[in-house]
Amino acid sequence: MRRILIRPFGSILDLHVAIGGRGDRADRIYRQLRDAVLDGRLRRGERLPATRELAERLQVSRSTVSTAYERLTAEGYLAARVGAGTFVAYAGASGGPLPAPRRAAAQPTQAWRDLDDPLWVESRPIAYDFSIGSPDPALFPLETWRTSVAAELRAGFVRNSSYSDPAGVERLREAIARHLGVARSVEAGPDDVLVTSGAQQAFDLLARVALQPGDTVAVEDPGYPPVRQLFEMAGARVVPVPVDEHGLRVDLLPPARLVYVTPSHQFPLGGILPLERRVALLEWAARHDAVVIEDDYDSEYRFGSRPLDPLQRLDADGRVVYVGTFSKTMLPALRLGFVIAPPAILSALRHAKRLTDWHNETVTQRAMARLLDTGAFARHVRAATRVYEERHAVLVRAAGELLPELELVPSAAGLHVALLEPGQPAGRTGVGAGLDARRVAERAGVAGVAFLPVSRFRRGHGPDGILLGFGGIPAAHIPDGLRTLAEAIGREQVRDSGDRVR
Amino acid sequence: MRRILIRPFGSILDLHVAIGGRGDRADRIYRQLRDAVLDGRLRRGERLPATRELAERLQVSRSTVSTAYERLTAEGYLAARVGAGTFVAYAGASGGPLPAPRRAAAQPTQAWRDLDDPLWVESRPIAYDFSIGSPDPALFPLETWRTSVAAELRAGFVRNSSYSDPAGVERLREAIARHLGVARSVEAGPDDVLVTSGAQQAFDLLARVALQPGDTVAVEDPGYPPVRQLFEMAGARVVPVPVDEHGLRVDLLPPARLVYVTPSHQFPLGGILPLERRVALLEWAARHDAVVIEDDYDSEYRFGSRPLDPLQRLDADGRVVYVGTFSKTMLPALRLGFVIAPPAILSALRHAKRLTDWHNETVTQRAMARLLDTGAFARHVRAATRVYEERHAVLVRAAGELLPELELVPSAAGLHVALLEPGQPAGRTGVGAGLDARRVAERAGVAGVAFLPVSRFRRGHGPDGILLGFGGIPAAHIPDGLRTLAEAIGREQVRDSGDRVR
Repeated sequence: MRRILIRPFGSILDLHVAIGGRGDRADRIYRQLRDAVLDGRLRRGERLPATRELAERLQVSRSTVSTAYERLTAEGYLAARVGAGTFVAYAGASGGPLPAPRRAAAQPTQAWRDLDDPLWVESRPIAYDFSIGSPDPALFPLETWRTSVAAELRAGFVRNSSYSDPAGVERLREAIARHLGVARSVEAGPDDVLVTSGAQQAFDLLARVALQPGDTVAVEDPGYPPVRQLFEMAGARVVPVPVDEHGLRVDLLPPARLVYVTPSHQFPLGGILPLERRVALLEWAARHDAVVIEDDYDSEYRFGSRPLDPLQRLDADGRVVYVGTFSKTMLPALRLGFVIAPPAILSALRHAKRLTDWHNETVTQRAMARLLDTGAFARHVRAATRVYEERHAVLVRAAGELLPELELVPSAAGLHVALLEPGQPAGRTGVGAGLDARRVAERAGVAGVAFLPVSRFRRGHGPDGILLGFGGIPAAHIPDGLRTLAEAIGREQVRDSGDRVR
Repeated sequence: MRRILIRPFGSILDLHVAIGGRGDRADRIYRQLRDAVLDGRLRRGERLPATRELAERLQVSRSTVSTAYERLTAEGYLAARVGAGTFVAYAGASGGPLPAPRRAAAQPTQAWRDLDDPLWVESRPIAYDFSIGSPDPALFPLETWRTSVAAELRAGFVRNSSYSDPAGVERLREAIARHLGVARSVEAGPDDVLVTSGAQQAFDLLARVALQPGDTVAVEDPGYPPVRQLFEMAGARVVPVPVDEHGLRVDLLPPARLVYVTPSHQFPLGGILPLERRVALLEWAARHDAVVIEDDYDSEYRFGSRPLDPLQRLDADGRVVYVGTFSKTMLPALRLGFVIAPPAILSALRHAKRLTDWHNETVTQRAMARLLDTGAFARHVRAATRVYEERHAVLVRAAGELLPELELVPSAAGLHVALLEPGQPAGRTGVGAGLDARRVAERAGVAGVAFLPVSRFRRGHGPDGILLGFGGIPAAHIPDGLRTLAEAIGREQVRDSGDRVR
């Protein structure tokens, strides 16, 4: 919670902003200014701080403050006078009874109060976007998708418009099973598939049906924060297990009921789990009667050699639950993911899906099935892979030249790469000296370069590093972006050494 | 679990079918027959029972068996010979090693095994559909919706296609807040709204943020089974509280952390909660620091006088969470619902939404916002209301004539009415004598009349009754449907008296 006092002419206003999504912050500012106007702490004609000034003092982005100001202006609380700034315009406050403040007695349980959003990123004007997690919208096959949606939005859709199978539209489940067999050698029939609202819902449903409060869950460290947080909120005991350049240190796994792993392209470091570790992982699972969640989030984009088949393919016991998503191959906005699970788990997942939201919106499911059936999806993925393969190559080359002091983690798939500070194996615990990627990110951000530091995804100690996504930046811009980034790092290191001298 | 032995020439096959969704049953039959063919229990050339025969013996609908047979035929396991029946066509079984059966070691927690689907209905050919819960698809404004979706599926959508605000698209939240203010006098701004995947997800998110395992939750009895089941699976102690023709017996509420109530149109009996009970409910909530979930699922369809404002309007403390849905006004398939909650709860809900599925699919949200903004939605609801109002009037009149022995619960909104067995107030506990609506439903079903008995929605004892939905039946068919239903009841009662004589 950050709080400041703003002091317009004659009045004192105590503004505070909670950590949280950007939306939260703008809302918070909006509501506090509005209330201040309504209860007369801000009086008509008083001048408000400029957005830049207020943004700096609240340590939020200027656009956050602007959002709040714009709403207040639109609603008549504030008015802008050209060249003079923003003023309180609302007259009601001068005399006249105020509406009774609406109280808010109902409170959530403690665990849900002021929960942090681990992936929240301050939005800034970005010249070079190396952020991770989203594909390039420019590559989205918009026309094909529109045609597909329009084709499904017909009378047939309306006739079957009541509540339907929680597992998802059968045509889509069949198409997913077929597609996975070809693209990922995943063994599955339509009845082994459950359609989810993105991969995140697959993890949530699995946490419900597989975990009891207090169960131990092993996650990768560094790893994917929303999954860790989800398991924590499900009441599990979450144990972060170190990851090195080859993925999860399976040898360090504690006894657990469930393990979450990204074998094809470790998130975020990018390593590929070697076969012997995969075998060891399945043996570990058999030993502890554990469920293995295999998150295959972005390995449809493969560069060079075909990677190892998914764990699910190796699994003869039926302990591996395979989770996939169309967020990286299509768009996150579609919220389409799926899970391939052994029968008992799948039947439980179907009940959990029914109780949480019945089923996914059906037109999107049908349109996706059509894309898969017609081969349009496969064509799209092939075309996009060519683009990403070039970006990957350019990025790897440029990183070698411009950031030679950092070590690239070898990867053969996905939409981002990781550069680690040198001199220490990624799995090593103990404070990571050298690079302070968070500070570099701050500085680079000012210069218009957006990226996420490895430390944002770490729980334990370990080397820091830089995650460079190429879903949002054309190949041609990559070298300039890295040059700017290299400068930011250079300056940081100068400052570090300076610090050390002092 | 129902199990039977089918005995084709020379072989014995033990088939069993689990209770569960219809999909479950067809799959189960499909898998067992397929495995029987694969492992040679069913040999090539053997004749299978006719679908009708097998359906009867398994006590499932014929279409369920047909679904299984059709898939097996499509996949080459079976073949139909005109006039001769269905035979095993698969040759692989004769010699040749069989694929090792895929094991399924992973199991869900006990609570999730063989969970029942309380709303599952055997599907039969239906002549008169009085089932409840869905609007008439024929009234869905398909063209307007298609235009709206197409308009939103443009470049702008793709540009903002990354992960977005878990609370939902701001334009939709604004539109919902405006709409509710006008249509339901609900006090809300866009920041008080969270868009959910149907009302069911609103209940799920609320259970997460408001409940701790062991907390007491009060629900209406009879009431909405998926909500009760959801709270049970969330680890709450669920206490069913009797309902009479005026809704929840607020005077019988136990101390609880949360209460779920349908004040505008009690589900399923249809009563309207009187003002004094509403006031008492809010006082009860204040006394126990409880959260009140107000489910306003179908009261946009109002007949005659404007009903009482929602509880949310009366609530000065901020203890009421208002849940609404577009499943009845538009289509369940869109999976669009929303919740209006006090700030602390809303902020927790936003986190819960982020962790469960990030946010709703965005094109549907934008298209819905457009419908609301252009007034097309209001026009649609007005037009649909006229149709439903006529069906409601015809149904009430016909019920009075054809089923005079049953008492209609007065209601002024929604898509169904309830007829209760007479002579005992609906709230009364103690075995309800007389009408066995389940048996009537069985018999009526055979005659092509589909309806749900009140007892399907009851936990405790109480009078049985008949729920008649008019979302799926034109006004012109209603009298004939009720006539057929009246005959079924007549025959039942004859049988009853006959039973009594014996």
